[in-house]
Amino acid sequence: MAGSRANSGAGPPPAVGADLHLELRGPGLRAGLTDALREVVRTGRLAPGSRLPASRSLAADLGVSRSTVVEAYAELVAEGWLTAQQGSGTRVAARAEPYRGAPDAPRERSDEPRPRYGVWTGAPDLATFPRTQWLTAARRALIAAPHDALGYGDPRGRMELRTALADYLARARGVCAEPDRVAVCSGFHHGLALMAQVLRVRRVRGVAVEAYGLDVFPDLLANAGLHTPPLYVDDHGARIDDLARLRDVGAVLMTPAHQYPTGVALRPDRRMAAVDWARDTGGLILEDDYDGEFRYDRQPVGALQGLDPERVVYFGSVSKSLAPGVRLGWMVLPEELVPEIVAAKGHGDYMTSALDQLTLAEFIASGAYDRHVRSMRLFYRRRRDQLVEVLRQRAPGIRVTGMAAGLQTVLELPRGTESSVVRAAARHNLVIRGLTQFRYEAADCGWRLPERDALVVNYAAPSGSAWAGTLDALCSVLPGGESRKPIKPSPWEGPAW
Amino acid sequence: MAGSRANSGAGPPPAVGADLHLELRGPGLRAGLTDALREVVRTGRLAPGSRLPASRSLAADLGVSRSTVVEAYAELVAEGWLTAQQGSGTRVAARAEPYRGAPDAPRERSDEPRPRYGVWTGAPDLATFPRTQWLTAARRALIAAPHDALGYGDPRGRMELRTALADYLARARGVCAEPDRVAVCSGFHHGLALMAQVLRVRRVRGVAVEAYGLDVFPDLLANAGLHTPPLYVDDHGARIDDLARLRDVGAVLMTPAHQYPTGVALRPDRRMAAVDWARDTGGLILEDDYDGEFRYDRQPVGALQGLDPERVVYFGSVSKSLAPGVRLGWMVLPEELVPEIVAAKGHGDYMTSALDQLTLAEFIASGAYDRHVRSMRLFYRRRRDQLVEVLRQRAPGIRVTGMAAGLQTVLELPRGTESSVVRAAARHNLVIRGLTQFRYEAADCGWRLPERDALVVNYAAPSGSAWAGTLDALCSVLPGGESRKPIKPSPWEGPAW
Repeated sequence: MAGSRANSGAGPPPAVGADLHLELRGPGLRAGLTDALREVVRTGRLAPGSRLPASRSLAADLGVSRSTVVEAYAELVAEGWLTAQQGSGTRVAARAEPYRGAPDAPRERSDEPRPRYGVWTGAPDLATFPRTQWLTAARRALIAAPHDALGYGDPRGRMELRTALADYLARARGVCAEPDRVAVCSGFHHGLALMAQVLRVRRVRGVAVEAYGLDVFPDLLANAGLHTPPLYVDDHGARIDDLARLRDVGAVLMTPAHQYPTGVALRPDRRMAAVDWARDTGGLILEDDYDGEFRYDRQPVGALQGLDPERVVYFGSVSKSLAPGVRLGWMVLPEELVPEIVAAKGHGDYMTSALDQLTLAEFIASGAYDRHVRSMRLFYRRRRDQLVEVLRQRAPGIRVTGMAAGLQTVLELPRGTESSVVRAAARHNLVIRGLTQFRYEAADCGWRLPERDALVVNYAAPSGSAWAGTLDALCSVLPGGESRKPIKPSPWEGPAW
Repeated sequence: MAGSRANSGAGPPPAVGADLHLELRGPGLRAGLTDALREVVRTGRLAPGSRLPASRSLAADLGVSRSTVVEAYAELVAEGWLTAQQGSGTRVAARAEPYRGAPDAPRERSDEPRPRYGVWTGAPDLATFPRTQWLTAARRALIAAPHDALGYGDPRGRMELRTALADYLARARGVCAEPDRVAVCSGFHHGLALMAQVLRVRRVRGVAVEAYGLDVFPDLLANAGLHTPPLYVDDHGARIDDLARLRDVGAVLMTPAHQYPTGVALRPDRRMAAVDWARDTGGLILEDDYDGEFRYDRQPVGALQGLDPERVVYFGSVSKSLAPGVRLGWMVLPEELVPEIVAAKGHGDYMTSALDQLTLAEFIASGAYDRHVRSMRLFYRRRRDQLVEVLRQRAPGIRVTGMAAGLQTVLELPRGTESSVVRAAARHNLVIRGLTQFRYEAADCGWRLPERDALVVNYAAPSGSAWAGTLDALCSVLPGGESRKPIKPSPWEGPAW
């Protein structure tokens, strides 16, 4: 019986070490590495018992000698943070506190109890994925598809999907889209990687990024050989004026509709200034419209791309609106970039499942996507309102910001409390990230972001059954928060179709 | 119970209509809305005939009163931009001209007549994709999947699929596989690109490739900064002894079971020599087992990987066995490479659709994959036999080689005729490639492949309805071939389930 071993506990133990992102700081290489590793264990980024990367792998990843890694490991073993056993590799010692923080090392099989509550991931509530409707669309799409839809196709993706997306993005997001300029990809990471390839071919040397954000994107760009100077972010979004002062920057990566994670919208004059910069310098704006479907109180903020479709590359995906596992995203390209992206896709033939493309095209064309988004918008707004109301009652000193749209919000904390709150949350089985983890600065940028203690709450992520407990755990650990009052979330707990 | 209503048909009626992004400007609310809607229609953002959101939904979205929307709609109906019909909602009037910019790139629908017959692509007969069985597997898989299967997952892919593949590859191809060493990717191109990234990190400088093959793979490796010296290929496969003479080569890319496109199998002593080279030098063998499922007359040739799983990286995909559009492939990795491939995948988060992964896992585990492969093996063998028989009757001077396995064969032509035959075929609406197009030599390699005029016939590619015509066109253009005799292919024209 094929597949009968799936999910069984049998078989050899996982051979794999964790994938570990480290930021080396400090005077010497070895001291910097030792500090970084100690920090990883101390903050719980690696759980007790988890295996560290083999010294050779980590050395290769970091571009340091293997002996540097071996010595750093040995020092931490001596300090009691790590254990080393013959045949079992180097592992985190048992006494370190539990954690499930950064999304660097997802594991499917683990003997450790998983934290019950997590608001660190940007994923939507996966329980709301419209399985039945998706399967219906898949059936319709696959039955209707011509045979050659299953072969190698246009590197931009299936025309059915590009047409449906052009239509949807024009009306829902104000994107100036034509099917010929839409390129399907496997999510934003993939789109950005293709774009990085194009920029390198164009001899662009740098891409400015926002000083708050996920580190994976500057990392991706840096891996492609681009330098990534940060742009200061304040209450009105990225400070666009600074772009003119940056050298060798041919593009800027931004989240104009809803800055991630601070949640602010780019002020209208800055939107215009960004477009002006692009026009004046021949630069490109890479617009990451990661949660454009979700807006609540305020006037919708349309895509920046509409201001100048020849200077803005628009990126979107279903990762928030449906689920990240679908791995479908899109770019809307300036005309002149179309052949370059086609060439970049062609190099690696990184195509995206034709079956899923056809299914999403049918899902959009049938109206199911609009219905789902509308339903989820109500659902997440309800969650956000519950979060705000519970905090008002039980942690009245906490200010909530960035909540007019999207799936995350920011809780402002008293100075100096962020890291202790994050650790306290971990003890309450609540995995949450402090805003500090999203800071991205450079030593030579001439400014520092203000000190700001805050939590980023991705309130869409918990499942419905975990939501009340998540709120409870959160209130328990907030400065001035109360943990006694029972939480009564609204009885309306799921999206309606 | 949260989320339990998701996917149920109950609940409030769907808040219908398109999701529409509007930017309100102007003096008053109603005037601003009217202007914005007029603009949407005028610029073609909403196509003629498309339905506007219900007034209640749009009012809720915009945070304005319903009457404001009703009045704005009414005004635009009066102006002729919109139409309103009882029971059909408000729609964009037919006269508005849609704006869909200039066509700037190749389109899928073209007025040029497409060649009727093509045997140049390595794709299987796409009409044989088991749509019904695939949909059944998709339904089963998606209904059974845990919610977190739809989130970001292990960079190696879903455990369900890795387990099913490990089991399948072990029994069907003699691959020494464990789920922990399997990494799912989006086809061979993707897997090879990841591998190239790993080799670069390892400071490998060159990858030897076979002197016959598809040029996209050396191109991909060269794009990643690797040099790609060719290995001489004769009737027993690649000449492995030459590896020792190549400088700065850390890996070799091969098709040992069925050399592409010549169709020969790597001789057993050369298989051992390849493994010895890898062991002696610390090199890696990249085994492209592109059509391992399809073998006919001879003893099956197992995967080379079984000889030394620590020195061979095994690659496979569903591109021949199901369809390239599914975009699913896999690598079976030496243990030490697992963290490196995970790191490479992590950089770009190039994941593969979780939905398709789960579906393929179910498809394999249920036995449907085995049944399909068995059925297709009979189907393609029948085609091959028909090809050989028709050639024997109508072009008896043509020798057929490389036909013991796989989906392609080589027709040897008289010296100096290849290019004229390829051109003649084009005039007969038959697209075919000469063997010369697959030659890959280097000026400084010290040898030349012998002159060889031949055609590569990918006999799996034509649809059932095009098969007889393909044979006929082929015979018409072969030197000494006859075009008059009617072709009578066997009545059995499709795979049986």
